[in-house]
Amino acid sequence: MIKATVYVTIKESVLDPQGNTVQGALHSMGFQEVNNVRIGKYMELTLDTTDKTEAEQRITEMCEKLLANTVIEDYRFELN
Amino acid sequence: MIKATVYVTIKESVLDPQGNTVQGALHSMGFQEVNNVRIGKYMELTLDTTDKTEAEQRITEMCEKLLANTVIEDYRFELN
Repeated sequence: MIKATVYVTIKESVLDPQGNTVQGALHSMGFQEVNNVRIGKYMELTLDTTDKTEAEQRITEMCEKLLANTVIEDYRFELN
Repeated sequence: MIKATVYVTIKESVLDPQGNTVQGALHSMGFQEVNNVRIGKYMELTLDTTDKTEAEQRITEMCEKLLANTVIEDYRFELN
């Protein structure tokens, strides 16, 4: 059993309207010190395998095909 | 300038329909080894302050008030 943690973030060059909205909300609540917010996804996957090399390859494939939209998003992952 | 990374995850005891949907999609794409998926949020906030203790307290307040729904979600954060 391997646990994979996947982080999907919007690319630096791409606007993040969700992040801007959260930043606006924080400002209006008095958190003026917040000057940038970027929002991404955090995923925990449990894999029925013990082979880390294979898991790494499979997770990369899952990210490329489904978990991330590589046109506008970056991804990275950790295996435990 | 302090960068805070906030992770918001659905509590263990709460169902995660989005995670189940992603798991189903992965299965139908041939990734049969995936036996659990939990989806959360990942946020990067930049704060205009240099006081780590204050930042910690402010981020906690933001999480409690806006960033996480503490009835069904857990949060944790790191400051850099």
